[in-house]
Amino acid sequence: MKAVVVEKPGGPEMLKLVDIPAPIAGDEEILIRVQAGAINRMDILGRRGGASDFKKTTALLGVEVAGIVEQVGQGVTSWKRGDKVMGLVTGGYAEYAVMPANRAMPIPEELSFVEAAAIPEVFLTAYQTLFWIGKLQKKETVLIHAGASGVGTAAIQLAKKVAKATVIVTTGSDDKAAFCKELGADYAINYKKTSFEDEVASITNGQGVNLILDFIGASYWKRNIASASIDGRIVLIGILGGREAEPIDLMMLMGKRLQVTGTLLTPRSDEYKAQLSKELSTHILPLFSNGEIKPIIDRIYPLEEIAQAHIRMEDNQNVGKLVFRIDDNK
Amino acid sequence: MKAVVVEKPGGPEMLKLVDIPAPIAGDEEILIRVQAGAINRMDILGRRGGASDFKKTTALLGVEVAGIVEQVGQGVTSWKRGDKVMGLVTGGYAEYAVMPANRAMPIPEELSFVEAAAIPEVFLTAYQTLFWIGKLQKKETVLIHAGASGVGTAAIQLAKKVAKATVIVTTGSDDKAAFCKELGADYAINYKKTSFEDEVASITNGQGVNLILDFIGASYWKRNIASASIDGRIVLIGILGGREAEPIDLMMLMGKRLQVTGTLLTPRSDEYKAQLSKELSTHILPLFSNGEIKPIIDRIYPLEEIAQAHIRMEDNQNVGKLVFRIDDNK
Repeated sequence: MKAVVVEKPGGPEMLKLVDIPAPIAGDEEILIRVQAGAINRMDILGRRGGASDFKKTTALLGVEVAGIVEQVGQGVTSWKRGDKVMGLVTGGYAEYAVMPANRAMPIPEELSFVEAAAIPEVFLTAYQTLFWIGKLQKKETVLIHAGASGVGTAAIQLAKKVAKATVIVTTGSDDKAAFCKELGADYAINYKKTSFEDEVASITNGQGVNLILDFIGASYWKRNIASASIDGRIVLIGILGGREAEPIDLMMLMGKRLQVTGTLLTPRSDEYKAQLSKELSTHILPLFSNGEIKPIIDRIYPLEEIAQAHIRMEDNQNVGKLVFRIDDNK
Repeated sequence: MKAVVVEKPGGPEMLKLVDIPAPIAGDEEILIRVQAGAINRMDILGRRGGASDFKKTTALLGVEVAGIVEQVGQGVTSWKRGDKVMGLVTGGYAEYAVMPANRAMPIPEELSFVEAAAIPEVFLTAYQTLFWIGKLQKKETVLIHAGASGVGTAAIQLAKKVAKATVIVTTGSDDKAAFCKELGADYAINYKKTSFEDEVASITNGQGVNLILDFIGASYWKRNIASASIDGRIVLIGILGGREAEPIDLMMLMGKRLQVTGTLLTPRSDEYKAQLSKELSTHILPLFSNGEIKPIIDRIYPLEEIAQAHIRMEDNQNVGKLVFRIDDNK
């Protein structure tokens, strides 16, 4: 099969299209003929070889695909050859990929493979961080940093549709801010023009926000703590702004009774991913079918040009997902 | 009634025995004839006038009592005059105190008022932090700092009896360490002789502990993060070691998927305290009746000598609770 691998750690030019044997489905697994997949930041870390903090670098990158079941392994009763599925994999930049059967999600009929490929990683992450970890309650206020990112655009929609939350986002341009508002964000702060903590204080009358989803890390650490409400939760899912956090006043954590949780989805157990995927299938996929929630796609590339997608993500140019397509399906 | 008040912020000498009008029970409240009460660190903060971070200084101190119901307010059906109760109050250093009726807990028949007075604050705090916030699971490993303190001695017992956890404690003397082991701690580290993070790494074969209860704060901040396991939880309930935490590596929070929660019990809502008290009554008080868990009392003082108890707590001399007694009841 055709696959894109990284031969040794480095820049986008290290991504090579090669021909390697297709995998086969083991017990409780399904083999998927990949129709589309998407690019994620962890692919870039993997490519650079800098992901050693949480994951060994793999030669074959890509953590999510959408496609057609080609073969089912021993013990699989929930899927059959020909079913259209999407979900998390290891080694998704390829014509075929295997996936534990209990993690696969059905592709809603109304969606194309390209649209489906834009769903798993970001909607699973947004769902997990907003609801499982962040315990977002109805009508609460949530601050979503990097609002125009893949997870950001998913989180805006889920927070509005599922929790009817008041959504505040930060972004790095007025265009991105406008796009976030179209998606449902109540307030969009251009962090290059103003300090988000002052804006949040003003918007919330000094009460702060109940939940913060943060991808930035160090440079936002103190300001997130200042922006959280009593009983607030901060979920740390990225460290784009650095990993060395400044000193903080622990009395703030106690006085506000804050909860700070660091998380990563990829290194979680198979069982965790299966449960999360199942819950997303049950509660959220119907909202895609009726159009209430939509996958946000920035650009689509052929598999062969996946390096271009890496470059665009590294430049923070994308609004929503960067997707690759195989063949010429819808 | 007789009561001990603090006339103006200062040292133990500012505590004065005075005669003031007794309170009366309002709607949904009970008036308690106090037989015993206990001293807590927040009383010392209140006395010093330094509690402004979480609570206005009150002239009348004391947050827990045990006694006899003297009068029930409108709407109270769960208690009657003569019932023996214990629980959280405001203004407990007095012959009479009022309490929301839904927060009162029955005193197990087998316990004296002095023993009962040693239960509410520390067992509620230990229960809340171990199970509600810390989500301690069966057979997990927990690190309890200040193991010989009031909350520490409560937490050792609850972690062993309820969760059959492996319990590691830190204390400041070999005597305290030995006492913690008598209470059920599996390992007791004298932090003055050795570094707890090295000991924890050795005891857990480098895996770290699932849960940490910390009263120390700043000076333990980084070492707690280093001592936590994957999916570990750190609950911060005190800052005896300072409030300005050193810089940390946020990748540690993400890579280990840690959850850090700051908490305080006293400023929580009445509803929260009622629910917590009810759960302790249901699940834990029976273990006091059959002797599986016991209140740990360091010393008992007459109400008039409560200043001596403050001095002993400020010197970190106590192992378990400092209790005051009124009258000459059992």
